[in-house]
Amino acid sequence: MTSAILLVIDGLGDLPTPKTPLQAAKTKHLDTLAKQGSTGLLATIAPGVVPGSDTSHLQLFGYDPEKFYFGRGPLEALGIGMNLKEGDVAFRANFGTVKNGSIIDRRAGRIATADAHKLEASLNMRIDDVQVLFKSSVEHRGVLILRGPGLSAKVSDTDPHKIGPLMQCKALERNPRTTKTARIVNKFTKLAQEKLKKNPVNKGRKLPANIVLLRGAGTYHKVPSLKERLSIRGACIAGGALYKGVAKFVGMDVLHVQGATGTGSTNLKAKAKAAVKASKKYDFVFVHVKACDSFSHDGNFKGKTKMLEKIDKELLSTLEKSNAYLIVTGDHSTPCIRKAHSGHEIPILIHGKNERQDNVKKFDEISCMQGGLGHLHGKDVMPIILNLIRKAKMYGS
Amino acid sequence: MTSAILLVIDGLGDLPTPKTPLQAAKTKHLDTLAKQGSTGLLATIAPGVVPGSDTSHLQLFGYDPEKFYFGRGPLEALGIGMNLKEGDVAFRANFGTVKNGSIIDRRAGRIATADAHKLEASLNMRIDDVQVLFKSSVEHRGVLILRGPGLSAKVSDTDPHKIGPLMQCKALERNPRTTKTARIVNKFTKLAQEKLKKNPVNKGRKLPANIVLLRGAGTYHKVPSLKERLSIRGACIAGGALYKGVAKFVGMDVLHVQGATGTGSTNLKAKAKAAVKASKKYDFVFVHVKACDSFSHDGNFKGKTKMLEKIDKELLSTLEKSNAYLIVTGDHSTPCIRKAHSGHEIPILIHGKNERQDNVKKFDEISCMQGGLGHLHGKDVMPIILNLIRKAKMYGS
Repeated sequence: MTSAILLVIDGLGDLPTPKTPLQAAKTKHLDTLAKQGSTGLLATIAPGVVPGSDTSHLQLFGYDPEKFYFGRGPLEALGIGMNLKEGDVAFRANFGTVKNGSIIDRRAGRIATADAHKLEASLNMRIDDVQVLFKSSVEHRGVLILRGPGLSAKVSDTDPHKIGPLMQCKALERNPRTTKTARIVNKFTKLAQEKLKKNPVNKGRKLPANIVLLRGAGTYHKVPSLKERLSIRGACIAGGALYKGVAKFVGMDVLHVQGATGTGSTNLKAKAKAAVKASKKYDFVFVHVKACDSFSHDGNFKGKTKMLEKIDKELLSTLEKSNAYLIVTGDHSTPCIRKAHSGHEIPILIHGKNERQDNVKKFDEISCMQGGLGHLHGKDVMPIILNLIRKAKMYGS
Repeated sequence: MTSAILLVIDGLGDLPTPKTPLQAAKTKHLDTLAKQGSTGLLATIAPGVVPGSDTSHLQLFGYDPEKFYFGRGPLEALGIGMNLKEGDVAFRANFGTVKNGSIIDRRAGRIATADAHKLEASLNMRIDDVQVLFKSSVEHRGVLILRGPGLSAKVSDTDPHKIGPLMQCKALERNPRTTKTARIVNKFTKLAQEKLKKNPVNKGRKLPANIVLLRGAGTYHKVPSLKERLSIRGACIAGGALYKGVAKFVGMDVLHVQGATGTGSTNLKAKAKAAVKASKKYDFVFVHVKACDSFSHDGNFKGKTKMLEKIDKELLSTLEKSNAYLIVTGDHSTPCIRKAHSGHEIPILIHGKNERQDNVKKFDEISCMQGGLGHLHGKDVMPIILNLIRKAKMYGS
């Protein structure tokens, strides 16, 4: 065994009501892996700290977010296939609907992906010495990049995050870079409104996509790759843009898997097959499944439970047959009763030939409290994986 | 549930002889809370490190003592209701008895509080450009503040900490600030002796309060409050000056509770009532009970055990009925057989609706070794509390 598959079940951890989804779900394969392997609980950042999806994945890949996190925008940009240059400022973007100076829908009626694509071209423009690049992704979502000298990501969102008055972009620090960036963003917002108003796609739409709302500004900085830092080759199998983006950011190959959508109907069998295949070629395969987190955000206990059963049946039944070390965990807890990320620890299991075996026989939040791995931090995960696959460099001699 | 009560039982942890006081005590309520919640062991600073009462409380409140601890004096000053200005140097003070150049009693025969108060006024004076402020608190205890330009807390104690020759204050670093401070302290000590000798309070006293002994110099620096740093409002319910002082230092409201004395006869029922009431208004309520630590310092196993039973019966029976998350722990271990603080971990329990439940059924040092929280550090406590009460800010997005 010389490779490892890290399965991250997004929003995996939960709270008991009175059972947790993992306790309620029938997960034969996960339980077998727990029985044959070692388990524990994981605090991705630190106990109690509520991780974002971006910082938690960076940490799982061994990239301390204190050093390597520069905001969400660039990661999203990479995730939807945009190329970034050092110093680019990127934002997550939404098509929204504005009427009489107020945002009346943050998603422009969840505009169809194909329609949104048609709006894209008109939003690429030049403002002063700044190149503005826009790319739409799924439905109302997209990414905006500002490329030019003297920019900063320390500016406020124009997305009000709820229905309400249109917001101006403001400098969050007072210096020429932030002032310039805010000015460019506000000018873009105005120009974009003019362009979108005229676009035929919006003709007859009840909720026209007549504004671009921006949030999550971040500056792109190239960081040393997994290969450069840890001498490993990594591959990513994911549906969601962010997860592909973080993977690309740290230098993984993002593999295309037909039907991997990042939703509840994602093709788990195809992902499993692709992961097993990749584990023969790569040292490290990151497999991401998003839907449990989405169900949690909706407070849908049953949906999360069923999704866990589907992951067990369609993904783990195949992964468990691979010849790779298997690490199963989450990026953070998203308790259904909270409908939001929380700082509670997440179960983790490690499985592989001739690895240690603890007494835990079920993979859930409560059983794993007694696990032989104890309480791990996110920063421990990559060293543990390197150790498993014999790629760890000795510290000292 | 949107608030948390943190009960700190001072000196809680102990060693088995052959039982620990927590094992020997009948603590129905604590055991029920342990059964219904999660438990673990806590190293306030780090495993094996022996915490002071000041640093441990700072750390429990999320204030890293490496950054926020400037000595004990200022915390004691705040605790007895003195106002501090940036740069003030404060000392803990004792009235003692000196005879022929030797300290023959460090407590001036445990002078009565009322008598000590009568000595206070004569000790407020001006020495060169330094204002000297003295306030007595309970019995022989008090605090001295030096206020003026160019002072430093890097000076030695004049309190010999045992019977013996009178000591001079010395600069612990060689620079004009330390030299000046030591000179002012020595001048004060001399002037204070002259004033006290003449004071009618000392007439006929077998052990006259004829000297002020100083220790624990610290410089006051204003630090950002809990509200500023974590957006939470905190309240403190304590008897002992230090604990009130640390609470005030980090911006908590110190609530007055009739009969909260910091001794074995403290009014626990009143503290419990006040805590439950405060938990409806504040995000975070810190409740401190001192006496277990005092019994430990006296090596009084039975006294500590009985006090634990009293805490269980009079405090926890009420706290467990509140609608707040409940966290019970200590600031450090004070094993009765050592009569001193030690670096052994302390039991901790977390209890609240829909929180995870482990298999531990008793709240004591040995049972909590198997707890689902594992081994926590003091720095984890405040993030965990913020997560419980949904006041944690997401790290990343």
